[in-house]
Amino acid sequence: MNQFEQFHLFLENADPILVVAHLYPDGDAISSTLAMGYVLRQLGKKVTMVNESPIPQKFSFLPGVEEIKLADSVSEIFPYAIALDCADAERMGSCRSLIREKAIVVNIDHHATNDRYGTINIIQPQAAATAEIIFDWVEEADFPVDRQLAACIYTGLLTDTGGFRYSNTSSKVFTQAAKLLETGIESHKIADAVLETVTMEQLQLLQTALSTLQKSEDGLVAWMDLRKQDIDRFANSHEDLDGIVNYARNIYGVDVGILFHETNDRTIKVSFRSREMVDVGNLAKSFGGGGHARAAGCSISGTLQEAHHRVLSLVQSKLKQECEV
Amino acid sequence: MNQFEQFHLFLENADPILVVAHLYPDGDAISSTLAMGYVLRQLGKKVTMVNESPIPQKFSFLPGVEEIKLADSVSEIFPYAIALDCADAERMGSCRSLIREKAIVVNIDHHATNDRYGTINIIQPQAAATAEIIFDWVEEADFPVDRQLAACIYTGLLTDTGGFRYSNTSSKVFTQAAKLLETGIESHKIADAVLETVTMEQLQLLQTALSTLQKSEDGLVAWMDLRKQDIDRFANSHEDLDGIVNYARNIYGVDVGILFHETNDRTIKVSFRSREMVDVGNLAKSFGGGGHARAAGCSISGTLQEAHHRVLSLVQSKLKQECEV
Ligand SMILES: [Mn+2]
Ligand SMILES: [Mn+2]
Repeated sequence: MNQFEQFHLFLENADPILVVAHLYPDGDAISSTLAMGYVLRQLGKKVTMVNESPIPQKFSFLPGVEEIKLADSVSEIFPYAIALDCADAERMGSCRSLIREKAIVVNIDHHATNDRYGTINIIQPQAAATAEIIFDWVEEADFPVDRQLAACIYTGLLTDTGGFRYSNTSSKVFTQAAKLLETGIESHKIADAVLETVTMEQLQLLQTALSTLQKSEDGLVAWMDLRKQDIDRFANSHEDLDGIVNYARNIYGVDVGILFHETNDRTIKVSFRSREMVDVGNLAKSFGGGGHARAAGCSISGTLQEAHHRVLSLVQSKLKQECEV
Repeated sequence: MNQFEQFHLFLENADPILVVAHLYPDGDAISSTLAMGYVLRQLGKKVTMVNESPIPQKFSFLPGVEEIKLADSVSEIFPYAIALDCADAERMGSCRSLIREKAIVVNIDHHATNDRYGTINIIQPQAAATAEIIFDWVEEADFPVDRQLAACIYTGLLTDTGGFRYSNTSSKVFTQAAKLLETGIESHKIADAVLETVTMEQLQLLQTALSTLQKSEDGLVAWMDLRKQDIDRFANSHEDLDGIVNYARNIYGVDVGILFHETNDRTIKVSFRSREMVDVGNLAKSFGGGGHARAAGCSISGTLQEAHHRVLSLVQSKLKQECEV
């Protein structure tokens, strides 16, 4: 029996169903929740969509988004749940408490690290997004795809591939995107809302960070700072800092881009991005942090100057090793 | 006889062939030149690829790009030419002088305004890029598509759709992208080089512009300035200013983004971008400029302050009209 067949058996009896994704939801988490919720309701199910965290404003255009409830506001406990885009059960955050102890949980995800916490586990690490898996299911089951469903799935593909720019952008992703556009969705408006739109505060933070931009003599490392007072002044949420570090990495010839930001008087959060030479996951690990080869982070006690010194000297020695290989 | 059949007849005799695109070439112009040159050489033709302007550094990864010659360095005059992505013959710039007076010219383009200056005209306004038309031809003729050819065509699609974000991103564009990725091209590296990579100078210009960012009281208009001395200090080419105006337009709630930049002591160049309310093409026309509804520009004599005043008051009155409708 393939994974979708198990899921279909589950759907024969499951009702009501809780649909949940990870806390601090990204485009894929939100879109997957909405797409799954939409199809289940078409199938006549009583569905509650929930998240621990509020939905970022830039996703407010998504059809049905106002129906995703905050965990706090739900009192019901569910015998059936579908967890989306969660590599482990903890990623659901406080939504876990809405799932009955012996509930049947369907775990649909594309993270290779998924620990198979579900009763039924549909894990496809080769998928670029959980939305991609949902679209596979929708197609296999021959559910009709209207604009509302297409807009949700498209948003998931778009965001988890970084606007079709990351290495997970497969031929299949484009084939799915082509089919979704045939429903008549205005993909340019989705891209505008999700990928282009910024707040005034984000630009003010970016400007402040860029005013501190420095590059190493060899041109391989670029870094920027954000002081606590800048963040207090301009950032409404942690999200507002997203993407700033990429500006350093994106400079022609740079391999490692770094953002140092003061979180309080004695701690500096460090974000790393790299192109191909330095494994910044390893680098971050040296400071007790973590992440991937191309994107990682850590926290360092001390002043900005101390953090600069410790991080930049290690980056330089890693680069020297790389150049010697 | 369809357009491609005429083109095939042309190819029976044409040799040597000049392949040319528009001056200040963008990704589509460069990619189309390389893709066409590559296929014609596979067909055994003697091909000279040429452009009036140097190729921007960010396209230097494209296979064969070093073979595109500057018009100045070519002394031969050609009896056959293929003009790509040029809405009129003037767009070839000085390359026109390399085409014999009674030459047979094939005009392949996707601009709706194309004036059909060719002997054979293959104009497809519904195509997102000239590269899309070339891929149609390649497929119809059943030419093999290897990675080198795929990388070129992909780059053309990618750049002319603004990374698949503009409204010209059709289902067909995604279908073509899916096929191109099947050759094994590393599309994420192309996106990185072409869409993400910036120069230090571009970031310095961006930082300077952002430091002047202002928003109207109603939040519908945002604008920035660049003074002559900033541009002299940081910009290597006009290209370095590209995209800066988008930051103003992209602010949440803003409809019109404007960049004012001093070109000399008494002239201000004004770039406009808009979301949906104000037709900035009309707006620019009021000042003797031009463009489209969503992107336009003009030049205004006077100081920055005078330009602000004249432009912003007209924008406000257009917005008032819009809101009254
Ligand atoms: Mn995901
Ligand atoms: Mn073009």
